[in-house]
Amino acid sequence: MIRTKKKFILASRSPRRANLLRQIGIKFSVHESNVDEVLDPGKTFGENVKSLSLQKALAVASHYTSGIVIGSDTIVVAGKRILGKPASRKDAAAMLRQLSGRTHTVFTGFSIVDAKSKRTVVDCEETKVTFRRLSDREIREYVRSGSPMDKAGAYGIQDDYGAVFVERLEGCYYTVVGFPLTKFYIALQKFLQS
Amino acid sequence: MIRTKKKFILASRSPRRANLLRQIGIKFSVHESNVDEVLDPGKTFGENVKSLSLQKALAVASHYTSGIVIGSDTIVVAGKRILGKPASRKDAAAMLRQLSGRTHTVFTGFSIVDAKSKRTVVDCEETKVTFRRLSDREIREYVRSGSPMDKAGAYGIQDDYGAVFVERLEGCYYTVVGFPLTKFYIALQKFLQS
Repeated sequence: MIRTKKKFILASRSPRRANLLRQIGIKFSVHESNVDEVLDPGKTFGENVKSLSLQKALAVASHYTSGIVIGSDTIVVAGKRILGKPASRKDAAAMLRQLSGRTHTVFTGFSIVDAKSKRTVVDCEETKVTFRRLSDREIREYVRSGSPMDKAGAYGIQDDYGAVFVERLEGCYYTVVGFPLTKFYIALQKFLQS
Repeated sequence: MIRTKKKFILASRSPRRANLLRQIGIKFSVHESNVDEVLDPGKTFGENVKSLSLQKALAVASHYTSGIVIGSDTIVVAGKRILGKPASRKDAAAMLRQLSGRTHTVFTGFSIVDAKSKRTVVDCEETKVTFRRLSDREIREYVRSGSPMDKAGAYGIQDDYGAVFVERLEGCYYTVVGFPLTKFYIALQKFLQS
């Protein structure tokens, strides 16, 4: 278990990330970063999610004189296309059609920043996800539920009905939920000890 | 989504299985089977979990004249050893030491039985799970929490702190939670249409 008296600040308003942190017993407040999620085409996908998670954590850390800020960023990559949060319901349906019956990769980066010392750890994890073939009706119903709209790649593996789109995973499950829990936990333990 | 007026009965008191069924919008009552979970060494692991899930579903179906009964059974296999629910805290610690730093396989079988016609579908799914190396202290703390005691293999991937033992998955995540949600969903759709 994590043992520390330091306060944690989560630089994300994602309820999924919050739930994962709670699951391993971390108490935290939420402070959203408002960083624009702009990807750098000159960087790898892994470098991009690391860089964005760090930008978010540093932006929030600048408001505090103590505490540990946790930043995170997730992107979904299908073929060479990056799928962020859908801009519209039509966009969400197009994303789901692209994911249907194929394997894509989810990249999630995380950063841990000590607001006082500005000491930082950044890392990322990637997981391969295979969707079964979805029917047009399933896509229509899922989009109509509104669930895809706040999620990169237009689906949530944990929350709801989106779970039964996924046939197979290779790698860390929590990376797909939006936060690489095991890798983060090990990194945080080291961070607090050093 | 699943559309039917039939009533569902879950032949398991596992809160994890109940949560997964709720996640895909199925409403059900719970009726525990009390079937002895005795494995047949002459059968494969997959055949065993299928057979036990069916025994549970049929035992419960015998109490009803209508409705659809869902049975399920999970075993954890490490090397050639089958890990069921731990008999004691000492047993739980021994299981976790055996899983530490290695890959094991989780088998989950499910059965769907129409209580009226006795029509049946049975299937199973297997997933490979890799644990990171656990410290003695982590094992001690996790066992002390009581969490391992009602779980095959002495850990829960979803509920709690056990999540950060898992480094990597290959296959269906929900099979490890204790119910192969995607495969079940597809089988149930076919079952209700035919």
